[in-house]
Amino acid sequence: MANELIFKYNELKKNSGSHSPSISSIKEKIPELNITVDACFLSNPYATELFLEYFKKEMIDTNEIYSLLEFYPAQNKIIANYVEKQLDIEPGHIFICNGAIEAIQAVIHRYSKGKIMIILPTFSSYYEYATQNTEVVFYNLDKKNNFKLDIDDYISMVKEVQPNTIVLINPNNPDGGYISHYDLKKIINELSWVENIVIDESFIHFAYEDDKLTLKSIISEVIDRDNIIVIKSMSKDFGIAGLRCGYAAMSKKRVSELLDNGYLWNSNGIAEYFFQLYSRKDFFARYEVVRKKYINESKLFFDQLLELNNIKIYPSRANFVLIELLNGLVADEVTAKLLCDYGVYVRNCNDKIGLNGEFIRVAARSNYENGIILKALKNVTKNS
Amino acid sequence: MANELIFKYNELKKNSGSHSPSISSIKEKIPELNITVDACFLSNPYATELFLEYFKKEMIDTNEIYSLLEFYPAQNKIIANYVEKQLDIEPGHIFICNGAIEAIQAVIHRYSKGKIMIILPTFSSYYEYATQNTEVVFYNLDKKNNFKLDIDDYISMVKEVQPNTIVLINPNNPDGGYISHYDLKKIINELSWVENIVIDESFIHFAYEDDKLTLKSIISEVIDRDNIIVIKSMSKDFGIAGLRCGYAAMSKKRVSELLDNGYLWNSNGIAEYFFQLYSRKDFFARYEVVRKKYINESKLFFDQLLELNNIKIYPSRANFVLIELLNGLVADEVTAKLLCDYGVYVRNCNDKIGLNGEFIRVAARSNYENGIILKALKNVTKNS
Repeated sequence: MANELIFKYNELKKNSGSHSPSISSIKEKIPELNITVDACFLSNPYATELFLEYFKKEMIDTNEIYSLLEFYPAQNKIIANYVEKQLDIEPGHIFICNGAIEAIQAVIHRYSKGKIMIILPTFSSYYEYATQNTEVVFYNLDKKNNFKLDIDDYISMVKEVQPNTIVLINPNNPDGGYISHYDLKKIINELSWVENIVIDESFIHFAYEDDKLTLKSIISEVIDRDNIIVIKSMSKDFGIAGLRCGYAAMSKKRVSELLDNGYLWNSNGIAEYFFQLYSRKDFFARYEVVRKKYINESKLFFDQLLELNNIKIYPSRANFVLIELLNGLVADEVTAKLLCDYGVYVRNCNDKIGLNGEFIRVAARSNYENGIILKALKNVTKNS
Repeated sequence: MANELIFKYNELKKNSGSHSPSISSIKEKIPELNITVDACFLSNPYATELFLEYFKKEMIDTNEIYSLLEFYPAQNKIIANYVEKQLDIEPGHIFICNGAIEAIQAVIHRYSKGKIMIILPTFSSYYEYATQNTEVVFYNLDKKNNFKLDIDDYISMVKEVQPNTIVLINPNNPDGGYISHYDLKKIINELSWVENIVIDESFIHFAYEDDKLTLKSIISEVIDRDNIIVIKSMSKDFGIAGLRCGYAAMSKKRVSELLDNGYLWNSNGIAEYFFQLYSRKDFFARYEVVRKKYINESKLFFDQLLELNNIKIYPSRANFVLIELLNGLVADEVTAKLLCDYGVYVRNCNDKIGLNGEFIRVAARSNYENGIILKALKNVTKNS
């Protein structure tokens, strides 16, 4: 049975292009395959629970949801007014988007020209969206240095390459490497001549600099620095990927330029409800509790993974870890076995450029699910 | 009291820019103003009811909605596969969008260059999104001809102007003027050299050519003609503006170009559910019933409006009518009185370019609401 499933999964994978098959395509094409844990999915499950509690009480139980679906939602600028309360920068600096991917597309298409410098490994959309007029220059993180960004080396490389645009994802995807607030300030200070400094903080809610797990965003820098663009998905930290919520913060001039060219009604009714909720003190106070709970559980999970044999866990301050498979273990095989024998789906990193070796990425889930992942991974990797 | 409300409304209007204040800003700023009917809102209320019936049964009562909000929705190409079943053209021709406005933005930005010819009056986004590199040439519909497009005159004007792009909204907004299928085919045949022929069919479900109210879309022309781009909002006909659903049909090459540049995850989870529902025979059969019911009631309503004094009703095959105010009636005053004295909010067309005179636009709503609109309009316009 297991071998048959693995065969079917491998067939499906062959037909899925460069990426691994999605959960929904697996469910559709191999219905007999029982997926217990989706460890590809980078999302705080406790935040989802919290949002759904509010949503059920305020929207479903009251039937308010029907109005959200029937009528036009508020326009971009109105929603920027809601989130101002939480972000503490003027709404003129905020570009509301239909998922962070829309902001990546808008920013890269409009502002990236000449040379763009992208750190590898990375989230592929950044180089995929670089227009034909842009030359993409890669800066490789060093595996030997645990994929940690060497600040001085990076700065000197940028000075040498003289790109118009640089992209920093903090913490980085897929390795979870974190640039401290101090180091990030150093980068933007020393590279203040770079036309566009794109900083993607989609995973910043999972990072921490102190034992109080304080949130430390670079967003306020956009107030005085016209070259900084901060991009933020809200799918991961708030556990609401289906709503398509995100924003980007940048100079007022740039927000105006983007809005003059469209993005008028790009939030749906339920996203509008979420943006209002996000700005409310009662919700955010409870969110902070589940954010910290999730970080603490994730740290514990990553520590437990460190004890397994034949794999190397790279240091992460995101809600996932990059795992290198050692001693002959192969990502294709480990991924297929975890899925077909244990129902645990992890991200096969074979399509990621800039990794040298066999890698998978594993998301932290709930405590219970983390236990299942740990056990499965232990069994699959021990037989090496 | 009424005068005080009118004063407050006029103050709010002054601060709302060129457009009239939105319903939500009125509710927020003048809470004592009781809005009974929103006759600005161009949407089939029976279609909303039908969608909500399915949504309640299949998503809320089953708690399936929670998965729609937590997980990533399907990507653009997958959703194109769903709607193929209903549209009867291959999914490679279909660009799924987050509301038609996203397709308008994408298409105008990417393909409009040189000269774009736009028929006035129109939906303002078409000329607002024309990029700085595009020269906008207007073609004016003649009030004396009831804003009906004179096909031969239009064709000869296009031949004279030699635009790269032409835009036809069918039925047109804000007048509801309809180009018959025969005439539209004549236009695209005679102007086959035009690089981009954009046909916006957002209101086509309300139009009819025969007494069976058969739907007659031009969409199948995109299969063989690379210059045709059909844009379709689903907010109006399906009554689901809050979901942000729409699509555009065009050559496979153009769909690929757009998707290579983004729009990867531009539908939310509930929109994905709607697209699946839209492709189902059981839903669509019931939708056809409420589509025809709404058209028939709208026709009756428009006939009743024809009997009022001091206004002229222009012929419409959309779900709204353009009304010219005669004998000294003023759009600003009529709009404010209808709202403040009768709770009926209509679209003041003072900001629309290409209208010469005092105009309002009135949406058809449910039979009951149409009765309220009719009575209010009769009272407000009789005292002229």
